[in-house]
Amino acid sequence: MSYPDEIKRLVEMDKKYLWHPFTQMKGWLEEEPLIIAEGRGCFLKDVYGKWYIDGVSSLWVNIHGHRKQEVDDSVKGQLDKIAHSTLLGLGNAPAIQLAEKLIGLTDKSFACSSPRLAKVFYSDNGSTAVEVAIKMAYQYWCHKGVKGRTSFLSLNNGYHGDTLGAVSVGGIDIFHSAFAPLLFNSFKAPSPYCYRCEMGETAPGCSFACLKGMEDILEKHGAEIAAVLIEPMVQAAGGMIVWPEGYLKGVRELCSRHDVLLIADEVATGFGRTGKMFACEHESVVPDIMCLSKGLTNGYLPLAATLTTDEIYGAFLGEFNDRKTFFHGHSYTGNPLACAAALASLDIFEKEQTLINAAEKIVLLENELKEIAELSHVGETRNKGLMAGIELVRDKQLKEAYSWEEKIGWAVAYKAREEGVLLRPLGNVIVIMPPLAISVKSLERLMDVVNKSIIAVT
Amino acid sequence: MSYPDEIKRLVEMDKKYLWHPFTQMKGWLEEEPLIIAEGRGCFLKDVYGKWYIDGVSSLWVNIHGHRKQEVDDSVKGQLDKIAHSTLLGLGNAPAIQLAEKLIGLTDKSFACSSPRLAKVFYSDNGSTAVEVAIKMAYQYWCHKGVKGRTSFLSLNNGYHGDTLGAVSVGGIDIFHSAFAPLLFNSFKAPSPYCYRCEMGETAPGCSFACLKGMEDILEKHGAEIAAVLIEPMVQAAGGMIVWPEGYLKGVRELCSRHDVLLIADEVATGFGRTGKMFACEHESVVPDIMCLSKGLTNGYLPLAATLTTDEIYGAFLGEFNDRKTFFHGHSYTGNPLACAAALASLDIFEKEQTLINAAEKIVLLENELKEIAELSHVGETRNKGLMAGIELVRDKQLKEAYSWEEKIGWAVAYKAREEGVLLRPLGNVIVIMPPLAISVKSLERLMDVVNKSIIAVT
Repeated sequence: MSYPDEIKRLVEMDKKYLWHPFTQMKGWLEEEPLIIAEGRGCFLKDVYGKWYIDGVSSLWVNIHGHRKQEVDDSVKGQLDKIAHSTLLGLGNAPAIQLAEKLIGLTDKSFACSSPRLAKVFYSDNGSTAVEVAIKMAYQYWCHKGVKGRTSFLSLNNGYHGDTLGAVSVGGIDIFHSAFAPLLFNSFKAPSPYCYRCEMGETAPGCSFACLKGMEDILEKHGAEIAAVLIEPMVQAAGGMIVWPEGYLKGVRELCSRHDVLLIADEVATGFGRTGKMFACEHESVVPDIMCLSKGLTNGYLPLAATLTTDEIYGAFLGEFNDRKTFFHGHSYTGNPLACAAALASLDIFEKEQTLINAAEKIVLLENELKEIAELSHVGETRNKGLMAGIELVRDKQLKEAYSWEEKIGWAVAYKAREEGVLLRPLGNVIVIMPPLAISVKSLERLMDVVNKSIIAVT
Repeated sequence: MSYPDEIKRLVEMDKKYLWHPFTQMKGWLEEEPLIIAEGRGCFLKDVYGKWYIDGVSSLWVNIHGHRKQEVDDSVKGQLDKIAHSTLLGLGNAPAIQLAEKLIGLTDKSFACSSPRLAKVFYSDNGSTAVEVAIKMAYQYWCHKGVKGRTSFLSLNNGYHGDTLGAVSVGGIDIFHSAFAPLLFNSFKAPSPYCYRCEMGETAPGCSFACLKGMEDILEKHGAEIAAVLIEPMVQAAGGMIVWPEGYLKGVRELCSRHDVLLIADEVATGFGRTGKMFACEHESVVPDIMCLSKGLTNGYLPLAATLTTDEIYGAFLGEFNDRKTFFHGHSYTGNPLACAAALASLDIFEKEQTLINAAEKIVLLENELKEIAELSHVGETRNKGLMAGIELVRDKQLKEAYSWEEKIGWAVAYKAREEGVLLRPLGNVIVIMPPLAISVKSLERLMDVVNKSIIAVT
């Protein structure tokens, strides 16, 4: 890819044929796109040979770095057996072994707590993992003979994917409201977004009026609600909104008290991103259903898993003619290549003590964020583990937001790109989410570039 | 995997941890599951070392066979560069090259016909490809300023995937009706299922009353309908329902006349399965949006593509603050490994003249089906290319169906399994869908086993 003509052609073909996700293509066509040719560890190389720090883990998926030997070898080894065989009516070893491993992991994370996650249902991405969870929760009540639980409760600023079931429980207006006629009805509780509290309170020391907001809905409509759906500890796409201590535990208590299921969407937060293997561990909360994807394969291949309890699984058991079967599946459900990548990735967590080693990097990140928080156009910095957000504001005193049209987040990202750091902002929030395996030195460099880019642009 | 203890453990772990798709797990737990360890060409090997003919292409995905050298090499070669980089804000070579290739393919298939497919939007599976199509079609009208097109028209017996948007346009009661409260409203036209004509007519030579049924809906509700959604030529999951000649063309004409978009779901039919590269070619029909997945990667990895026209793409172009951006994307959209598999697979079509070579196998299959059609409990055999269905009936004269509870399809499949052929029926319909690369000898063996298994069981 070192010949200028070849690169030029590639750029042309991109603009001619590709419709990029979450991208205003008019803007894309006017710019010079960055095309990635290779990766290595926490770095990405473009077609011109320039290397960048992968500051957002290639959209929140990479954990142990690119071209991780053990993961490469595992996928290649599986290729030499079989790339894919279906889970509809047949089994395959990597899918079985990974299911065992995932349940082992949640057993370890949640110790003897109740409920206990016991079964694994595979799909291909976070959105389908959530669709599976929604359909499971809905049918669980149907099969139990409980009628009327046809709705769901989720949070403002929540994001659970882009298929229409997942959009129905989303709470980000710009992504979700346009599709209103195609969505099912769901209830929305206040987001525990303390920097801009919907309830007008100030944390810590507030009365958790946001939780009270959820409780009010459950008291009034509990019998209509199949499950509460949340992204535990961090509402990621909503702007890296880090929850105040106690909120998640409060949600679990409300669900138990009102006898609705709790679905934890750990697609973004799972696999060590928040400093624990699963974000729910921070408050010893066990969901009834848990959705995993993104980091599951070390950012190599699409794979998702929806974990649930024996109680829910059991409600779908019956004779063939009871028609309790869970009629859901995708062609590549339990794909052996993707499962092989996931198995290798989970082994690395143990072998390299990834979570223990992340601790010092989390401290470093937090120190750097503290410094950035002092900048005149930074309203708040927030993080849980190695997931961080920096909210830029026009006026720090008034917490006045930059208007959407100013693309201030993108301005910072483009500046950082010049300095060799790849970022992708969420509106006015700069997202920092490097691979867990990032070195201290690279993390320092990343944060230094972010700091300087914010200063340069704001 | 040759040690009995290891195999025994694997079976136990499967039953302990895995929830299989589209599977009544009570039945699964009572049986001895078949676990696939390896593949080669059109054959699958179980953990005990027994080989089987892969009679349904590992759920309709495999094309050139398992362990296809060129595809293996392409995936391995890409692993040595980078497994994944995001398409959100960045490009990658395999995704760009595949987009170019796909548009080249459709240009070739549809020659100078109109409309022209020009842009590729990636996702991970057939279901998400359809969700993308639905959202695109819906927003296309919104962006054009046309109000009220908030519904879709699809067919009875249609199947488009299991996420809730795709379920909303599904027409198979057992899969879809359970979720009614979570679905958006859509219109359903009669299925062109000539063996059991909903309209009481007899093909050929009928008046196409099924098309008239669609026309009636369009005349009455056309202004509410964003798009008509179909599986061209074969309604696959609905029972391998092969359409009568002229129906597809009729649908296209109705869409054009009533100014609604046509979405062709070629997830099952694409990539040569019907004897043409795309099923729409059989009647020189070009859809406004086309969904591809399954065979795209030679059955190796989850990948999907939604292709559309410049007209639709253009409606989403605007300034950043026009908010016309298509806010849809999955973490692994345009995954380089999956795109590398797809690129290799498409090369093989050219190199090995896969479609030309399939012709004699289609003739063989049709001859074998004719013989099977004579059996006393076979109501109808039907095929388009190498996609075939054999509908079993209790009473041939009366076309009386076996009851669902009898699991007659499964009885045949289990019998065939004993003889070394893997099948997965759709209710009373035996599905035959081998990899296109199957040898004449293996196809003869496959059909011989199917024939004998039907005789043995019915």
